[in-house]
Amino acid sequence: MKLHGYFRSAASYRVRIALNLKGLSAQHLPCHLRKGEQRDPAYLRLNPQGFVPTLETDGGAVLIQSLAIIEWLEETHPEPPLLPKDPLQRARVRAVAQVLACDTHPVQNLKVLGRLRALGLPEDKVTAWAASANRDGLAACETLLADEPGPFCFGAAPSLADLCLIPQLGNARRFGVDVAAFPRLLQAEAAARAMPAFADAAPERQIDAE
Amino acid sequence: MKLHGYFRSAASYRVRIALNLKGLSAQHLPCHLRKGEQRDPAYLRLNPQGFVPTLETDGGAVLIQSLAIIEWLEETHPEPPLLPKDPLQRARVRAVAQVLACDTHPVQNLKVLGRLRALGLPEDKVTAWAASANRDGLAACETLLADEPGPFCFGAAPSLADLCLIPQLGNARRFGVDVAAFPRLLQAEAAARAMPAFADAAPERQIDAE
Repeated sequence: MKLHGYFRSAASYRVRIALNLKGLSAQHLPCHLRKGEQRDPAYLRLNPQGFVPTLETDGGAVLIQSLAIIEWLEETHPEPPLLPKDPLQRARVRAVAQVLACDTHPVQNLKVLGRLRALGLPEDKVTAWAASANRDGLAACETLLADEPGPFCFGAAPSLADLCLIPQLGNARRFGVDVAAFPRLLQAEAAARAMPAFADAAPERQIDAE
Repeated sequence: MKLHGYFRSAASYRVRIALNLKGLSAQHLPCHLRKGEQRDPAYLRLNPQGFVPTLETDGGAVLIQSLAIIEWLEETHPEPPLLPKDPLQRARVRAVAQVLACDTHPVQNLKVLGRLRALGLPEDKVTAWAASANRDGLAACETLLADEPGPFCFGAAPSLADLCLIPQLGNARRFGVDVAAFPRLLQAEAAARAMPAFADAAPERQIDAE
């Protein structure tokens, strides 16, 4: 498989963790977002959004959207599971993942922040926008997980929720959010960081890290 | 079941279509977003994000996030299916849904547009922001669906992709996007509009419509 991604992209990071947890390897093909490589015509033919990640399967299929890619990995490589078996519990895991992947990350990605700058917003207000999006999303997750057993988001093993949470906590810190306000999330992060599957997927360990 | 929603919310609209297609009924409990009812403490206890929709199941479980709710409906009421059986094709359907539900709608929802206004952006620029987000998302979907058989997004029956597309096309028009640029999407919309499950879920047919 080939994974087109960017070391600092939270969405690429989620898929890297999933591949590692499933024991799957992929060739990592960097797509440098700050240099605009996602708008290269050859890349746009793979991913018409011009976003990362894009996964090319061994069979030659091209998949986009991190959560769709991870659900595909889950369906084709079920072990270890990233979603529980019970439908209600699956819905709870997916909901936490989507609080982050739908309502948090897309509101603070490079494209949106670039649009804010193009509107003349000064850099401190751009950072405050991103921090606020992260704070709102993480606060909702802290509440949603308050009664869930740890140490991970949902119990003793990592799930799709942790795959979204760990990268988002990294973004939150980059934008100056005081993550100490989210002790339940930090408990999940500590458990995840102790696993090589998460540690090896971290941005600073990627071949395109700067 | 009880569905807390708002007539004009694209995310609520998706779940209404899913319930109708599955032949399920729910009591519709309006949460008036423009009056700020989503920030009512009683509502926040159900949905800590302060977003709609929220589904209360017959068993008393509380589910949030429209795509998580729809996947739960799909797993507990499989007929008619909203996702194909083949994993690769499921990934393609989910990807189109997520282009809209992750990268399009959250960038132009009431909360984000309110933040832009609070930053002093004039109304024409706020509308241009929302139009641009819709145009980008719909353009990506038009390309992704170019080779898929119609009339729906993926073939002869509606899928999760159509559940996200139809509400988003409504938003796009509200923000002045020329949707004639997306003939493949309009083909899917025409097929959907002919089905009572879609027509009955439309914003103007809801009890809280203004």
